[in-house]
Order: sequence, then C-alpha cells, then structure tokens
Amino acid sequence: MVVHSHLEISTTGQGLYLITRQIEEHVRKSQLTNGLVHLFLQHTSASLIIQENADPTAQQDLEEFLDRMVPENQHWHQHTLEGPDDTTSHLKAALTHTSLQIPLLNGRLALGTWQGLFLWEHRHQRHSRKIVITVIGE
Amino acid sequence: MVVHSHLEISTTGQGLYLITRQIEEHVRKSQLTNGLVHLFLQHTSASLIIQENADPTAQQDLEEFLDRMVPENQHWHQHTLEGPDDTTSHLKAALTHTSLQIPLLNGRLALGTWQGLFLWEHRHQRHSRKIVITVIGE
Amino acid sequence: MVVHSHLEISTTGQGLYLITRQIEEHVRKSQLTNGLVHLFLQHTSASLIIQENADPTAQQDLEEFLDRMVPENQHWHQHTLEGPDDTTSHLKAALTHTSLQIPLLNGRLALGTWQGLFLWEHRHQRHSRKIVITVIGE
Repeated sequence: MVVHSHLEISTTGQGLYLITRQIEEHVRKSQLTNGLVHLFLQHTSASLIIQENADPTAQQDLEEFLDRMVPENQHWHQHTLEGPDDTTSHLKAALTHTSLQIPLLNGRLALGTWQGLFLWEHRHQRHSRKIVITVIGE
Repeated sequence: MVVHSHLEISTTGQGLYLITRQIEEHVRKSQLTNGLVHLFLQHTSASLIIQENADPTAQQDLEEFLDRMVPENQHWHQHTLEGPDDTTSHLKAALTHTSLQIPLLNGRLALGTWQGLFLWEHRHQRHSRKIVITVIGE
Repeated sequence: MVVHSHLEISTTGQGLYLITRQIEEHVRKSQLTNGLVHLFLQHTSASLIIQENADPTAQQDLEEFLDRMVPENQHWHQHTLEGPDDTTSHLKAALTHTSLQIPLLNGRLALGTWQGLFLWEHRHQRHSRKIVITVIGE
C-alpha cells in the first residue's frame, strides 16, 4: 500500500524548523503501521535533516558551521541573481538532504530518543516549502 | 510490486550529467503509478544529486564549490594510486549521495519545478557508471 | 511485505566500522528477494556511509578529511557539554547520512564491486549504536 500526502511549511528566514509532529500526524492519517515513511522536499535552496532535537545549542552550532563552510559573497559565485544567499542556499542544500526515510514500526516513526526531523531553510526571505510525504507498507 | 531496471551512463570527465529524462523513461516502462523511485549508483567515486536544472551557473557554482572544498594534491592524501583525483573523488562522493529517492505520484516523478536529477562524475577520465533503478509501489 | 529487524554495533572510538556482512545476514533472514533494504541509524552523533571497502587508505583519507573539515575546539562551538567531540560529531553526522537504501535484487544487495556499508562513529568514547533494518518488497 502507498499513501501520499502533502505538507506546506512557511519559513521566515534561514534556520531549522522542527517538523516531527506534523509528519507524525500525516503518518497517523495514512493508517499504515509498518513500512517506510519518505519525505521529499520539492526545492533546491532548502533541505531536510535529522538532528538533535533537545539542546538548542546543537542546532545553533549546525547553522554556524554551515554558514562558515559556505560563506556568502565569494568572488567566484555566479548564481546570485536573487541575492548573495541564492547560490549559497543551493550549495548548502547539496551538502545536506532533499529527502529523508524513516522506518515505520508498529504505527510509530522509529526515531531515536534525540532525533528530530527538521526543514532547513537556507534563504533569508520568507518562503513556502512543499514536502511530499509517502508512506509505503502495510 | 517491485520493478528493477539498469541504466548505464558514459561520462567524459568531471561534471554534472542531467539524467532526469532517462529516469522518467525507465519509470514509464515499469508501468507502476504510485510509490517510490529509488536510484542507486554502484560506484564510490561519483555520486547522485538533485539540484537546480534551469540556470547553468547554479551547476557551475556547485562544481567550483566542491573543487574548492576538496582540493587535489594535499600532503595528507594517501589513496592516490590512480591519480590526484582518486581520493578526492571518494571524498566528494561521501559528501553527496549514492542513492536518491523520489515519490512516484500518478505516474510522474514528484519533482519540484526546478529540480533535476544529476549524475555527478568526480573523476577526470572517461567512465561508464551503472545505476540500478527500483520502482516500488502500485 | 515489510520485515523489520534490529542490529546493535559496539564502537570503540572514532572510525569506520564495516557492517556489510551483518546487514547481508539480516536481509537473508527476511526471506524477501526483491525490493529495497533500508538502514536507519537511531543516533545523531554517528552516521552511515557507503564507501570503498578494499583499500584501507581510502578509509583513512575519509577520516582525515572529515577531521580537517570539522575540527574540534573552535571558539564558536557551544554544544560541548560532553566534550570537544560532542558538537563536531553532530556536524559530521549532518554532512554524511542517517539512513542508507540499497536495492535488493534476486536475494542479494545490489552493491557495486568496491562498495561496502559502514557505520561511521564520530565520538571518541565507546558507544552502542542501534540500526533499524527494513526490507520492503517481495
């Protein structure tokens, strides 16, 4: 059995947006209990990531790290028509993930104790980000 | 239902090779219409990525970025038997993806407007790269 | 059909741990022969990766590279309650993978000749790492 659904997240600038609960709600509605849950982000300047959901400093370090590894305003940047965060957003997305898969085990996402699901917005402006959720299983 | 098929891509040096149409053709032949499409690259010195398919400068920045982040000829490189691009190709592959998953929705890949599927060749020489395509669903 | 199973790996410090054989054993026990095998690591300070399994220098370069790209003891690190390798482990995990998917083709993992499955431990101390294995298919 396959159940698709759609989730739209409004972002208000660069940062990590916790989406675990929204995804759990979509999975519940699918009425499937064993299989895989697949999240697919339909954008190339934002990404998805599973990371520490407890201590906010873990998330702050992630953001600082990616900003330092992919700084804006480099002389070799060409794809900056929409601003200095245009190309860097694509580069940050390339280093992280466009899709995530989580086992669905007895009706629950089999996440570890500290794992949260995040949408990672890389653009400074507001955006509406579309995620396709696919539950496949029994 | 599960349908596997095989795709072989000839590469002529480092770069991004758009493979969206070939994958769509394989998916069409599977005759499945809802589920997941999984691409698996059977190599460790090339990778797969979903990125901007419209503006070529986005792809040029991706390549320049990865070359700058993973430069050749570092004193600590050991795995260079096949040339200076040997170890860097593995390192670049480790930072990107060996497999991709895309939802299959009403007979179509649920890609966003600007998303293209790319094989990312990291070696300078010609190579033949094998991709296993698995369509799983209904 | 969906078959879940669980694997626990004891790690004795930072490094790549080859797990291909253990995964193959779990897949064999599932008695499924065609579909996808999904590995999910329930931790955020270790990761999973598919890389060169033949020449040990390839693995040594991977480790050296990640240590150089994500050095410990940076002034901006905040999440270091458990030591200097605390935040760097999360950052290294964010750049690599929490889950892997491999096609299951006629009862075998469709890995390329040189591809091995690795658990990548990023912490210095001993840890017990849990992997959920999901085989989905026929």
